[in-house]
Amino acid sequence: MEELRDPYPSRRISKPYVAPRTEPVIHAHDAARRTGPLDDAQLDRFERDGFLFIPELFPANDVRALRARLDRLCREGRDSEAEEIIREPENDEVRSIFAVHESDDLFARLADDPRLADAARQILGSDVYVHQSRINYKPAFAGTGFFWHSDFETWHCEDGMPRMRAVSMSILLTDNTPHNGPLMLIPGSHRHFVGCVGETPEDNHRTSLRRQVIGTPDTESLKWLAERGGISAPLGPCGSVLIFDCNTIHGSADNISPDPRSNVFMVFNSVENRLRAPYAAPAPRPWYLASRPRNDEAAAQAA
Amino acid sequence: MEELRDPYPSRRISKPYVAPRTEPVIHAHDAARRTGPLDDAQLDRFERDGFLFIPELFPANDVRALRARLDRLCREGRDSEAEEIIREPENDEVRSIFAVHESDDLFARLADDPRLADAARQILGSDVYVHQSRINYKPAFAGTGFFWHSDFETWHCEDGMPRMRAVSMSILLTDNTPHNGPLMLIPGSHRHFVGCVGETPEDNHRTSLRRQVIGTPDTESLKWLAERGGISAPLGPCGSVLIFDCNTIHGSADNISPDPRSNVFMVFNSVENRLRAPYAAPAPRPWYLASRPRNDEAAAQAA
Repeated sequence: MEELRDPYPSRRISKPYVAPRTEPVIHAHDAARRTGPLDDAQLDRFERDGFLFIPELFPANDVRALRARLDRLCREGRDSEAEEIIREPENDEVRSIFAVHESDDLFARLADDPRLADAARQILGSDVYVHQSRINYKPAFAGTGFFWHSDFETWHCEDGMPRMRAVSMSILLTDNTPHNGPLMLIPGSHRHFVGCVGETPEDNHRTSLRRQVIGTPDTESLKWLAERGGISAPLGPCGSVLIFDCNTIHGSADNISPDPRSNVFMVFNSVENRLRAPYAAPAPRPWYLASRPRNDEAAAQAA
Repeated sequence: MEELRDPYPSRRISKPYVAPRTEPVIHAHDAARRTGPLDDAQLDRFERDGFLFIPELFPANDVRALRARLDRLCREGRDSEAEEIIREPENDEVRSIFAVHESDDLFARLADDPRLADAARQILGSDVYVHQSRINYKPAFAGTGFFWHSDFETWHCEDGMPRMRAVSMSILLTDNTPHNGPLMLIPGSHRHFVGCVGETPEDNHRTSLRRQVIGTPDTESLKWLAERGGISAPLGPCGSVLIFDCNTIHGSADNISPDPRSNVFMVFNSVENRLRAPYAAPAPRPWYLASRPRNDEAAAQAA
């Protein structure tokens, strides 16, 4: 039976709103909370801020291998017509490649890496599967930014993710400097849901991944959140990992610096938070944006 | 008699190049160097880096008055068709207003303020006049950036400024934070001239002030300069002043933060460096971009 009421109405509304979050941020309790790579102080920080930055979690060797693979995929992607490859809005440079955990063995192994997957299990309090993975290139001189948004808002509306029980991990493959358009987050914003105005057009993802318009919070709500939480842009060397709650509002400016700002994104979703029909879109998005493994596949992945 | 050779060929060339600067950065010598508001350490820093940041040179009272005026001009500018008003490329928000030292009494007084004008005389080693003035709004959430460029390159090619004997001053009217798209500079870049490829189209300024394409250095040269000098983005409270050489390469990312990044720009040129015919453009730019006061007017302004 369908749920009677959408817990997070968005897009199909006439006025933006900010509502307090009613579900937990750390889903594991008691013994389960203590089983995993993150210590209490890290979990507390994640719970309070909606994100956690772990400097140099991956050593230089791992970074070198991942970056070499990322460069190769970018070269191969240039002439490919695969729809998992998203290009910059102003030129045809490769901006992102999605579903790399399915198409590439090295990134598949990365998705299973206990430094990431076990931390996800610890935060989400259950087994997990990869909801989405991608490489972001953000090239030097021409990388474009992304306006403020909550990923959960999109995943809920367009992918049918019912609850805030997913977590994103960004593995930095280049240094995050103040000048190459690092990710900015609004600390504490994960404790609120911002309902956005504007219906999802058909095939929205064909343009939204190049430049998002639908599902971006209104400036009034953003001001309110930033007055309370400020803005934080974690900086650090490649190999560092940024873990953030699916509902933490984040964005980035463009990158005119001579240094690329490349990273791999892995989004883990709880197996108890599987996708349904989209809450506010005409049709589900394609597999490479929102994976829907069958139960047995997810179980195998989680094993 | 016309000069036999353009000392800084640009745009009318087929390959970009980087050439060492052959003229001084501080033009005053001996006693004249010591006559003015800047001390030796400040002059040395300016000479080495191509810029100098002076925190809180203007007290809060001055900033308040200037910001109130800036807000008023922005409101009045919204419905004005004056060509001194430049708009954002993606919407019609006011981006800049030029020649405010001519149209507004408060900004006229600011141009004469000894904290600025005397520092300009000290650096340029002569009397000075205002070559250009402008307000930059860079509004919250939607302020767009500016790609790397040397102002001198444009002033030389499009305005006929013969030599590197002008200096820009940016008076911060809002705080410069890491997140609101602060000006970034390449320290030491003023010691090189980067010749750019691409001829100046007719009426280039009608688009270049919204988004510059012509007269931007090639990425190879930018990398070379940034490897040597790095990138610096001076941060500080409103009332601070950034003084930079006309040839220091600078740029900025866009501003998606909830805070505007507004400032007033005053460009002082030496009276011994008056404009001629453009070196690489079909016609001189209008008065509000490049003032050409008569000798007696400049003398009166300098008095």
